[in-house]
Amino acid sequence: MIKVGIIGASGYAGIELYRLLLGHDEVEVVAVSSQSYIGQSISDLYPAFYGYDDRFFESDDAVLHKAEMIFASLPAGISEKYAKFCDEHGKKFIDLGADFRLDNEADYKEWYGKDYSEKELHKKQVYGLSEVNRDKIKNATIIGNPGCYPTSITLGLYPLLSEHFNLNNDIVIDSKSGTTGAGKTLTEDSHFPRCNESFHPYKIGNHRHTPEIEQELSKMANEDIHVTFVPHLLPINRGIVSTMYVKLKEDVTFDDVMSAYHKYYDDEYFIRVLNGKVADLKFVKYSNYCDISLHYEPRYHQVIVVSAIDNMVKGAAGQAIQNMNIMYGLEETKGIKMAAPSF
Amino acid sequence: MIKVGIIGASGYAGIELYRLLLGHDEVEVVAVSSQSYIGQSISDLYPAFYGYDDRFFESDDAVLHKAEMIFASLPAGISEKYAKFCDEHGKKFIDLGADFRLDNEADYKEWYGKDYSEKELHKKQVYGLSEVNRDKIKNATIIGNPGCYPTSITLGLYPLLSEHFNLNNDIVIDSKSGTTGAGKTLTEDSHFPRCNESFHPYKIGNHRHTPEIEQELSKMANEDIHVTFVPHLLPINRGIVSTMYVKLKEDVTFDDVMSAYHKYYDDEYFIRVLNGKVADLKFVKYSNYCDISLHYEPRYHQVIVVSAIDNMVKGAAGQAIQNMNIMYGLEETKGIKMAAPSF
Amino acid sequence: MIKVGIIGASGYAGIELYRLLLGHDEVEVVAVSSQSYIGQSISDLYPAFYGYDDRFFESDDAVLHKAEMIFASLPAGISEKYAKFCDEHGKKFIDLGADFRLDNEADYKEWYGKDYSEKELHKKQVYGLSEVNRDKIKNATIIGNPGCYPTSITLGLYPLLSEHFNLNNDIVIDSKSGTTGAGKTLTEDSHFPRCNESFHPYKIGNHRHTPEIEQELSKMANEDIHVTFVPHLLPINRGIVSTMYVKLKEDVTFDDVMSAYHKYYDDEYFIRVLNGKVADLKFVKYSNYCDISLHYEPRYHQVIVVSAIDNMVKGAAGQAIQNMNIMYGLEETKGIKMAAPSF
Amino acid sequence: MIKVGIIGASGYAGIELYRLLLGHDEVEVVAVSSQSYIGQSISDLYPAFYGYDDRFFESDDAVLHKAEMIFASLPAGISEKYAKFCDEHGKKFIDLGADFRLDNEADYKEWYGKDYSEKELHKKQVYGLSEVNRDKIKNATIIGNPGCYPTSITLGLYPLLSEHFNLNNDIVIDSKSGTTGAGKTLTEDSHFPRCNESFHPYKIGNHRHTPEIEQELSKMANEDIHVTFVPHLLPINRGIVSTMYVKLKEDVTFDDVMSAYHKYYDDEYFIRVLNGKVADLKFVKYSNYCDISLHYEPRYHQVIVVSAIDNMVKGAAGQAIQNMNIMYGLEETKGIKMAAPSF
Repeated sequence: MIKVGIIGASGYAGIELYRLLLGHDEVEVVAVSSQSYIGQSISDLYPAFYGYDDRFFESDDAVLHKAEMIFASLPAGISEKYAKFCDEHGKKFIDLGADFRLDNEADYKEWYGKDYSEKELHKKQVYGLSEVNRDKIKNATIIGNPGCYPTSITLGLYPLLSEHFNLNNDIVIDSKSGTTGAGKTLTEDSHFPRCNESFHPYKIGNHRHTPEIEQELSKMANEDIHVTFVPHLLPINRGIVSTMYVKLKEDVTFDDVMSAYHKYYDDEYFIRVLNGKVADLKFVKYSNYCDISLHYEPRYHQVIVVSAIDNMVKGAAGQAIQNMNIMYGLEETKGIKMAAPSF
Repeated sequence: MIKVGIIGASGYAGIELYRLLLGHDEVEVVAVSSQSYIGQSISDLYPAFYGYDDRFFESDDAVLHKAEMIFASLPAGISEKYAKFCDEHGKKFIDLGADFRLDNEADYKEWYGKDYSEKELHKKQVYGLSEVNRDKIKNATIIGNPGCYPTSITLGLYPLLSEHFNLNNDIVIDSKSGTTGAGKTLTEDSHFPRCNESFHPYKIGNHRHTPEIEQELSKMANEDIHVTFVPHLLPINRGIVSTMYVKLKEDVTFDDVMSAYHKYYDDEYFIRVLNGKVADLKFVKYSNYCDISLHYEPRYHQVIVVSAIDNMVKGAAGQAIQNMNIMYGLEETKGIKMAAPSF
Repeated sequence: MIKVGIIGASGYAGIELYRLLLGHDEVEVVAVSSQSYIGQSISDLYPAFYGYDDRFFESDDAVLHKAEMIFASLPAGISEKYAKFCDEHGKKFIDLGADFRLDNEADYKEWYGKDYSEKELHKKQVYGLSEVNRDKIKNATIIGNPGCYPTSITLGLYPLLSEHFNLNNDIVIDSKSGTTGAGKTLTEDSHFPRCNESFHPYKIGNHRHTPEIEQELSKMANEDIHVTFVPHLLPINRGIVSTMYVKLKEDVTFDDVMSAYHKYYDDEYFIRVLNGKVADLKFVKYSNYCDISLHYEPRYHQVIVVSAIDNMVKGAAGQAIQNMNIMYGLEETKGIKMAAPSF
Repeated sequence: MIKVGIIGASGYAGIELYRLLLGHDEVEVVAVSSQSYIGQSISDLYPAFYGYDDRFFESDDAVLHKAEMIFASLPAGISEKYAKFCDEHGKKFIDLGADFRLDNEADYKEWYGKDYSEKELHKKQVYGLSEVNRDKIKNATIIGNPGCYPTSITLGLYPLLSEHFNLNNDIVIDSKSGTTGAGKTLTEDSHFPRCNESFHPYKIGNHRHTPEIEQELSKMANEDIHVTFVPHLLPINRGIVSTMYVKLKEDVTFDDVMSAYHKYYDDEYFIRVLNGKVADLKFVKYSNYCDISLHYEPRYHQVIVVSAIDNMVKGAAGQAIQNMNIMYGLEETKGIKMAAPSF
């Protein structure tokens, strides 16, 4: 049994991770922490756990010392010191926040307003997009777990960009996310009477996930890829649908595209390339699947890629567990093999 | 591995049962049937199962012959012949419909408009309220799995009525259910623009679950119990909250009531008597829990019992599996030990 | 044109009042105030008003001086000084808060934790339940506009209690309200991922509207009426459904009850006693109607009264305007004659 | 008073038109029809109208004969005969369906599968995009009222295309609509448990509104404009948000774009070009506004136009009334001057 712990377990990603880890039969959750709720029981915050597997939030230090595999779900700028501790003590570290996702400190500084405090450490970081970086993840000790939007987008475009099928490097990405993406903090936008029966884009052209998306797409394409990325807020709890518009090179056919997606993904358990159906939140919610459907607009020789994920599972806690499974050589689907309830 | 099958697997209760049974590690689902969709794949109807554990809907006969443990989720009047077949062939039968719930054929005739076709068979039926009838369920071969409203109500009142704490036998029950309770059939009431942002009671005083509720409450109380039962339709997918108003006998204190609930339920895994919190759908959804909170109105010496369940799990598929576990001597929580996701 | 003003216009009731008053062709809104947003434009908070009838929030004093008819929508304890000013300057005052609803200062003290600062003033207050107190409202200068739950309940029970049809004075009231009832303040309970797809009762037996409900029902019945009142939070924006359970005296028939409701309400424009339909939020939302349906449970000789209102209109701003219309001798439906959009 | 009638008043657009027309003080609704519900009262279908302005659905003929201004909201292929009757009898006709929107019969045949039966009549049709075609509408007798998606899109792009600011003629349009867009007919997609908490695109590249969108955009641009149009289904009742991506010619600045929108729209009552806010369904619902916000992506010299309308008002019934007002020389805002309720 792997001794795992969660730092920042009181937030949405942290508690989802806790819920999923409890169903994983090769791990033991040895400690969870929350700076705000230290000493309180989990069920005080989330009564769903009352009588199930309730316990107290401990200190971050307790997690660091008791666990060998540490997950952290924290605001930007806090994870580095914990990662350093893990690095020095031979523990593995998966960061669900943004501190280990960006390769260039300048990007981090620009979008998160901070410097890296442990610059050397970042050389060890691996971007935890499980299906794409599996080999690197195997031997990694520090994982930057991908953001929710980036997961939906990079998985959606990976075969297309890797095969250099795109005509030019400008891609339109219109994403829609449920409200859990904004987390537990009370905000005007998530006040029920404000959010319910409403819909709107937000942070047009300046969402913090933009550099992460472009960094990973550029690596896939081996060239600089810039995207127009517009996120929208869906008045539902969970899930991200990204609708992506890409022009194809003249000599590439839609069949080529379909074949590429099947080649890259047919062996991937958690990625389903749909035939004849449209990707839909309904069928991925509460699961670790990423559903992808491909559509063709002949007049512009354009592909429309639709991807659907659960932002809290494949977009956060589920992929973190998938990465842990890879790091420990476990069956990759352990603890996260679930079909979405259809209602 | 127990060979299980589901007749009527294309409906909401049937497919939920299928989803849950796939996560039960001591059963093998050998066949599922649907008269309407025979030959079609499950994922045609419910794409959530695409690539997960997809298969074809077979005939009812196929299920009857391949499985040793048969679940049926069918409209009233169809189950009896299947139960008879099982009875004659030493198979176990759990009916999620209404055909084996009522003790008196007259009640069945009155509320469902049909006679029993296999009268003798009904002597063998056991009402599958797991926590209350566990001993009978152990040796049963034909289970009438409780309705969703009756489950939320009878579990909510069991200690109170068994201890004869109620002053008189009239109890007000105000229940609220999500829309999956009405199933897969398209209706005006479940048309999205009609149902969304709406709320209303329905079938006031004439809901088919009334005789079932009164039958079971009367057994618990050892006297005729009549209830005023008003169901309401919540514009959400899942869950039932029942708010129940019961006057106490003069010499019974609220402490007596609390003690009774703890005595009856503290050893029950799936029933949580809350202390200081109010029962809430949020914390039971997608789980097999029944949460109960007790509240006291001193001016009338009245107890208000609030119970919350997921209508599709504890109110249908989950309790059916719990009953199967009991019948086969398995750990009772097998396959249905899940905490609700908190969002 | 009546010069009206709103103190506390930035809250939900205040801004709804503003919206409705703009459609009233015999009033001119001369000023609106907000202590928190003074100097900001209405459209900063509520962009719906951008280019429509936008203006700045002024000081409370500005409203008091410019308007002859002052509406106030404020937290408990602030209205009295404004009412006093109006009283001294011959202006009319309608308080949408709780400061002028309770007849007994002791009740106010118990439930709101404050003393009355202007005790004499309270002798002039009239409870603004338009249909019931119309004659007193005509000549009133200070109106305590009813709370949302009390409106749905007192209108629902008025004929029944006035005719002394109820067997005893204990009545069960199970109410369900949309989230706007809790207002604009961010709370855990109104955080979208928490509230959405959830449902639960709250403040069981201790909601502040209880003394107001009992005070008014007692006046109608000419005897002390106590109620068991349990409010629930609906995951929708607007509306209150109250389901009320009342036992009838032996010699009273259900026909008597129906006749009484028709007698009391057939001439009331805003109260619809339904025949053969069930009261439903869908058909009162965004309107000033109170729909009432009556149902009979013969086994207990019990009437179930269902009432449905829009909590922000008939339960707040709409009824306030109705009261103003009565006070000024205008057509009572002026500015509030609207059918609910059916979707 | 203009004598107006509605053919096909039982559908969603028809009943919304009825609701709005009842608040218009220069018209009298003299008859409404429904082939399916002839002889039934409106309140049987839509209880919101009970006691408000209830009446019976009459025959289509009755409407044709009693009214001078006829609105029709019918499936494709039925309106022409009614339009012909109006044409022959000097009555005005506004078709909320698709029969008089397309200039080329070939397009109609391709997308709706039918020929025009009254070919000459179509020479008289005017596309009722009020702000754009106001002058033609003034003298028109047959109006093809725009579809909901086309309204949100053509108004959103009008200044940009008219000024020829777009670099090339391929535009990406990602639209999201509430469920009322699909109307009153029961479908799997609008079954509450299916639709609720779900989200997905549909009819990618083959939605019937595509030829209408391209026809009107091409007229504005004076060149063939083709669009990539992907509609999505929002799990809410009302509203359309269209997010549109357009590359600018090199010498056009974003300031030029902003100026153009202000020039074209600052005098338009129902079009609000937002400054510093993002267009949002919340602030247009139940109103006739079209809110537009403009955003700039410098890396691609690309404009992102976001438009938000209520699909049933500006996208159907409201614009129909606006067109009637124009045809009759009334104040254009008559009967449709409403601010959205903010919750």
